[in-house]
Amino acid sequence: MTLALGKDLIGLEYLSPEQIRLILDTAEPFKEVSERAIKKVPTLRGQTIVNLFYEASTRTRTSFEFAEKRLSADTVNIAAQGSSIQKGETLVDTARNLEAMRIDMVVVRHPSSGAAQFLAERINSNVINAGDGKHEHPTQGLLDLLTVRDKVGKIAGTRVCICGDILHSRVARSNIWGLLKLGAEVAVCGPQSLLPRHIEQLGVTVFRRIEEAIAWADVLNVLRLQLERMNAGFIPSLREYYRVFGVTAERLARAPRPLVILHPGPINRGVEIDSQVADGPHSVILHQVTNGVAVRMAVLYLLAGGRPDLAEAAKGGREGGE
Amino acid sequence: MTLALGKDLIGLEYLSPEQIRLILDTAEPFKEVSERAIKKVPTLRGQTIVNLFYEASTRTRTSFEFAEKRLSADTVNIAAQGSSIQKGETLVDTARNLEAMRIDMVVVRHPSSGAAQFLAERINSNVINAGDGKHEHPTQGLLDLLTVRDKVGKIAGTRVCICGDILHSRVARSNIWGLLKLGAEVAVCGPQSLLPRHIEQLGVTVFRRIEEAIAWADVLNVLRLQLERMNAGFIPSLREYYRVFGVTAERLARAPRPLVILHPGPINRGVEIDSQVADGPHSVILHQVTNGVAVRMAVLYLLAGGRPDLAEAAKGGREGGE
Amino acid sequence: MTLALGKDLIGLEYLSPEQIRLILDTAEPFKEVSERAIKKVPTLRGQTIVNLFYEASTRTRTSFEFAEKRLSADTVNIAAQGSSIQKGETLVDTARNLEAMRIDMVVVRHPSSGAAQFLAERINSNVINAGDGKHEHPTQGLLDLLTVRDKVGKIAGTRVCICGDILHSRVARSNIWGLLKLGAEVAVCGPQSLLPRHIEQLGVTVFRRIEEAIAWADVLNVLRLQLERMNAGFIPSLREYYRVFGVTAERLARAPRPLVILHPGPINRGVEIDSQVADGPHSVILHQVTNGVAVRMAVLYLLAGGRPDLAEAAKGGREGGE
Repeated sequence: MTLALGKDLIGLEYLSPEQIRLILDTAEPFKEVSERAIKKVPTLRGQTIVNLFYEASTRTRTSFEFAEKRLSADTVNIAAQGSSIQKGETLVDTARNLEAMRIDMVVVRHPSSGAAQFLAERINSNVINAGDGKHEHPTQGLLDLLTVRDKVGKIAGTRVCICGDILHSRVARSNIWGLLKLGAEVAVCGPQSLLPRHIEQLGVTVFRRIEEAIAWADVLNVLRLQLERMNAGFIPSLREYYRVFGVTAERLARAPRPLVILHPGPINRGVEIDSQVADGPHSVILHQVTNGVAVRMAVLYLLAGGRPDLAEAAKGGREGGE
Repeated sequence: MTLALGKDLIGLEYLSPEQIRLILDTAEPFKEVSERAIKKVPTLRGQTIVNLFYEASTRTRTSFEFAEKRLSADTVNIAAQGSSIQKGETLVDTARNLEAMRIDMVVVRHPSSGAAQFLAERINSNVINAGDGKHEHPTQGLLDLLTVRDKVGKIAGTRVCICGDILHSRVARSNIWGLLKLGAEVAVCGPQSLLPRHIEQLGVTVFRRIEEAIAWADVLNVLRLQLERMNAGFIPSLREYYRVFGVTAERLARAPRPLVILHPGPINRGVEIDSQVADGPHSVILHQVTNGVAVRMAVLYLLAGGRPDLAEAAKGGREGGE
Repeated sequence: MTLALGKDLIGLEYLSPEQIRLILDTAEPFKEVSERAIKKVPTLRGQTIVNLFYEASTRTRTSFEFAEKRLSADTVNIAAQGSSIQKGETLVDTARNLEAMRIDMVVVRHPSSGAAQFLAERINSNVINAGDGKHEHPTQGLLDLLTVRDKVGKIAGTRVCICGDILHSRVARSNIWGLLKLGAEVAVCGPQSLLPRHIEQLGVTVFRRIEEAIAWADVLNVLRLQLERMNAGFIPSLREYYRVFGVTAERLARAPRPLVILHPGPINRGVEIDSQVADGPHSVILHQVTNGVAVRMAVLYLLAGGRPDLAEAAKGGREGGE
């Protein structure tokens, strides 16, 4: 029996541990495609994918675009700027129109939590959530999982602490679901004002002091501090945040063991992390970025109906052959 | 003898009935391409097409982009925002530069009526009008014609009423020319302030009341009401417009026969049309969108010199083959 | 022995005459590719190239995009607008992220002089400077050289005068380096306020009057006058500039021999050049644009490790073949 992903990827909350493992395992053969001179397999040739971004993004949009092109899909980018959205068209009308043009998949980023699910229920095309409000950013969660697995050797039993603005972070939410489902021990650490109430009920430990987190963890996933949080009064100043919560080389030097450092980017150097750590030997930040393309290729492949057991063969395909 | 389209597609006013029929007939085999798993034929491989948009557009630009990619063309998008236009370059200089890069075709949208024709006379590349000011939007007219033919079974003798802001609408103009040339009976309906004077001289009937239009027509083509018309004083309010001209389920229920409902999108739900009608069983709005890709493939194919009698074979081509 | 270009193309200042000639010679076979019905060779198939533009550009970005697509590369465009740059990410972090996605090359335009070099030293991907501040715009310099060679028959000994705002112009700088290295005699002509001090030390002649330049030169390369120079007080008015420095048909008629007229575009008609000259028989402005695609194809090909002696064969390749 072949495990399936279903029609959409909305969040890690809605996947079983087996489905998450399926994606991570399927990503493995795709890693190698991006290391070749000819980074292209014919898997999704002739399929049309829309990247529908209602929020600005370089990193995620580019990563999806490379994943799509390396699978030979035809892609179209739609940014909210310059689109019918300006004419007041609803998300559903936009999506139904795209569907009427016979697209196969839509990768959607939207400022409203739940937008991806809302869309997935209304169109037949595959929907991939590329970040919806404060809800989830599942491919980021998956690439973080893959990176932990690569660098620690396993996820089950690994202690991962997510540091920073947990309250507003879809990355935190996807990480928590994914890590817990695969058996990691999960903690969060940040200022009281940036932690969701009752977060312990999800099964995560809460640290108020970064030193405690560092003493406990195998892995730190350091979130970006959105600068607008300061203006909104959540933190007194960037300087103060760095003083209390900054992940610095000094603090890491006191850890009982070397910690693996993740960050979803873009980095605020000297705010949530210092440059010495971000560019240091234990940082796996760029490895996350590399894994991002492979994870997204795996998700696209599986949602398109690709058989996991044939992923190895699919990656072996030569562009231009048949 | 093989009918030809000529170098450009500027407007339906300038095509013969035979040429219009040629495009509609050529669209037929291309419809099927978008229904395949592999939505791609090698017809325009290695040809370069520029989508040069001086006005924001999602729907039309995306539809052309899919049509181009499904024909295997290489496409480049240029939006007025972020282009040399900001440096004050003229339309002709921009186009001559593109031509010097050896593009094959340019799809142009421009706020000035006549811009497409102006361009077509000055460059050797094929020019396709994707909407010029209040003049024409010929591919929209063609997809509307194809949709009427699909849904009513014929165009000749069919009664089509175009409803709304006729005065400012390039869609209305392309529809009127195309429908009349293919033998439809054409009417318009809208507030006095939004009807061109002497419109009857084109051979169309004028209805002042939407109830009369509904009693008369087989097909309603309901135009989008540009919200800026209200601010400009053409109509008293959106609410008032809806009350007098809104295409509602209640009004349609009193029609002597079921009406086919077209709308070029994006829809203003509750202004020119209510949701019950837009999403109802007689709405063919999404079918129009689907036909849009096929019609644009046909236009690109024919302007590129494709033989209509070989369109069936062209569509049969497999991407990647020779 | 095969001459190589090295990893990057930062400026003509850093190339030997042999390397410059290598690029021009390699461009020759690629010229013909853009004249075919199928403008595509499989040379860079499966390679991924990012066009990273921190300044608005139609012409240069489009020219690179066509060059990349005609070599069958996969391309992604990133404009500063709508990118992580808005979130304050540094140029290096952006580039390292792109590199982590396993891009092969990055084409970068940036408002800061030295940005391309800075980048090239920090990433392993090939970096191509598409204009950095007031420093260099090497592919523009190369296409100008190729155009002079095409139209005059040789570069060595040819008298080229660059006219206009030399002070702020990266095009002027790349031209001066390239022309001098290939043995041309080089002059500049413009208002005192727009000439760099001590420019003679580079080995160029300075003309204060356009009439003298016209009397001396075989070729005029007329730079665009950025309109913001007037506001900044460098010139009294556009009218005054045109009166004193405008390249007009009247002035050219008094030249001892017919001059070849280059302009990098976009043209300010009636400011630095009049329409009669820009569109006249001695203008090679559009030929420059055509050469731009060929030169960029040559640069991409050589940086990707293409062997110059196989360029003829590479261009002969058929897209879709193996």
